[in-house]
Amino acid sequence: MASRSIRLAVIPGDGIGPEVVAEGLKVLDAVAPAHDLKFERTTYDLGAARWHRTGETLPDAVLEELRGQDAILLGAVGDPSVPSGVLERGLLLRARFELDHYVNLRPVKLFPGMDTPLSGVKPEDVDMVVVREGTEGPYAGVGGVLRKGTPQEIATQESVNTAYGVERVVRYAFEVAASRPRRKLTLVHKDNVLTFAGDLYQRTVKRVGEEYPQVTTDYVHVDAATMFFVTMPQRFDVIVTDNLFGDIITDLGAAIAGGIGLAASGNVNPDRTAPSMFEPVHGSAPDIAGQGKADPTATILSVAMLLDHIGAPEAARRVERAVADDLAARRGRPARGTAEIGDAIAERVSG
Amino acid sequence: MASRSIRLAVIPGDGIGPEVVAEGLKVLDAVAPAHDLKFERTTYDLGAARWHRTGETLPDAVLEELRGQDAILLGAVGDPSVPSGVLERGLLLRARFELDHYVNLRPVKLFPGMDTPLSGVKPEDVDMVVVREGTEGPYAGVGGVLRKGTPQEIATQESVNTAYGVERVVRYAFEVAASRPRRKLTLVHKDNVLTFAGDLYQRTVKRVGEEYPQVTTDYVHVDAATMFFVTMPQRFDVIVTDNLFGDIITDLGAAIAGGIGLAASGNVNPDRTAPSMFEPVHGSAPDIAGQGKADPTATILSVAMLLDHIGAPEAARRVERAVADDLAARRGRPARGTAEIGDAIAERVSG
Ligand SMILES: CC(C)[C@H](C(=O)O)[C@@H](O)C(=O)O
Ligand SMILES: CC(C)[C@H](C(=O)O)[C@@H](O)C(=O)O
Repeated sequence: MASRSIRLAVIPGDGIGPEVVAEGLKVLDAVAPAHDLKFERTTYDLGAARWHRTGETLPDAVLEELRGQDAILLGAVGDPSVPSGVLERGLLLRARFELDHYVNLRPVKLFPGMDTPLSGVKPEDVDMVVVREGTEGPYAGVGGVLRKGTPQEIATQESVNTAYGVERVVRYAFEVAASRPRRKLTLVHKDNVLTFAGDLYQRTVKRVGEEYPQVTTDYVHVDAATMFFVTMPQRFDVIVTDNLFGDIITDLGAAIAGGIGLAASGNVNPDRTAPSMFEPVHGSAPDIAGQGKADPTATILSVAMLLDHIGAPEAARRVERAVADDLAARRGRPARGTAEIGDAIAERVSG
Repeated sequence: MASRSIRLAVIPGDGIGPEVVAEGLKVLDAVAPAHDLKFERTTYDLGAARWHRTGETLPDAVLEELRGQDAILLGAVGDPSVPSGVLERGLLLRARFELDHYVNLRPVKLFPGMDTPLSGVKPEDVDMVVVREGTEGPYAGVGGVLRKGTPQEIATQESVNTAYGVERVVRYAFEVAASRPRRKLTLVHKDNVLTFAGDLYQRTVKRVGEEYPQVTTDYVHVDAATMFFVTMPQRFDVIVTDNLFGDIITDLGAAIAGGIGLAASGNVNPDRTAPSMFEPVHGSAPDIAGQGKADPTATILSVAMLLDHIGAPEAARRVERAVADDLAARRGRPARGTAEIGDAIAERVSG
């Protein structure tokens, strides 16, 4: 069989981004041959250094090149030397919005053998998928400031939610729920306060849900959801939520599922009108950058999600199994560095 | 000494509200005489039943009466028979906004002997105060819906933040931090995405902080804050945050500090231009209403906050000690009902 060629854009980014991406690519290289996959990689120098050098975050020309790729692997962006928001809005969120990543897919799963800060919780208790909206809501970037720096300053942020945007992410969430054994979808919002947006989500879940009679649905306020994450994580199977609530609860989810070093995510364009982008949930962690200490597992699990997305589910399962085996073997062993972990998983994948 | 008379408005509300409020008042009655306090109580029939009967949530005339009181004790509002948001916005938030409760004060404290879902966490690890803004931000109620029910629907929610509103809550938070041994204030926001509002908070903390050189300050994104709550709660002393982030993290805080049955709060008007309102963080819990099962401790601790606010700190400490003793005595004992817990604490308070 001739091998399939995949154009992969790589954005290592800032801080520990390049370190963890290197390990993700190592594992990708290790798994590719057995599944007749060939990755044509293009690395894009984006992030803090580029911004300092040129003032650019995500130039139009680069964005156009990205559109021509099949998938994107991103490490992390952000650095204390850059004003907060510049890289996040100008690079990361710009990519998510321009490439229409309307599903931000974030599994929250406790692997056997992993530590969780919760007492008495077993791996089977933490196994959910958060389907976070990725292209609107409070992240729309709508808002402004008037009379800045004066006692009369007003700063606004507008959450913009559309039937178009909500329906497509809700539909995707129902598909995910329908494909899982428990077939349960929970809407997380704050509809008793954010009444307009919450009502749109509620009505949409109800209406789309009529097409999925096999999926049971319920609703939990976001504040209560954070409580359930730590007291009763097993109550959740699939969650659909807005961009900001999804951001918050998936960090909490990462914390209960073995830590941010393991949390993978996909910024998915299900219609495939542009490439999807896979990235660890963690940030650039400037405090440990360059020390070879960062855990690349979240990036490697993001690579597995990427493999799923490009239609190589067997390769994806292989990477996931290698990660699970590596995690199971960690207990009681001395801590390893970034490259060591990458090597170990790559070896399991090729072995 | 002649006893001091205090006008107390009581809003039992819905669900378990009346049950827990009855115990709060029982404890108040038990502590009052020894501290020469006399409470003139007026009970206001507000909540789901009133709305069903008359369509009213918080009528203007009642609001005017409330303004004449010295303090308000509220149980909980909300019922599944009332559309989501009607009572929350029309009663609870209307009271908070009209009475200018710009500080929503929420201690997060793990009492000795209490269970927490976190493993390896000791009471001294969880001892913080969240100062949540209470009168603006995403709770402003600004927003709307266009083309409702059509594929072209747009629903917006605007977060409105003013220098006036942010400065006064930040200043209050610095005062709280300055009064505590660790003298540490953490701003929790999402300034890399909500850049306008986040920047206003950041600049305000910096500016006001110059007046409090003894207080150290730092900043944590709200998503990361939820992680720290479960992995490293001891990193927080005092937190200042906006209305929505405060809502979310204090429910999580309640969960890690022994559960929502213990979480107290004060909706405080520090300028005393209107009465402050004290209420448990939990909701009306219609599923267990009328069964005498609800834990009244959160309401009783809210009564302690009320006592502090009206200038009776010794009475407040007495109630807190009684609660702490009651909690310490719980371990290994059979569960008690609402009134039994109230009786036990009232007895300790008068004894
Ligand atoms: C870096 C930041 C803009 C981003 C977000 O808020 O989405 C991050 O927290 C995430 O969850 O991917
Ligand atoms: C009932 C609801 C409007 C309220 C809020 O969101 O403030 C509650 O969750 C709280 O925390 O007091």
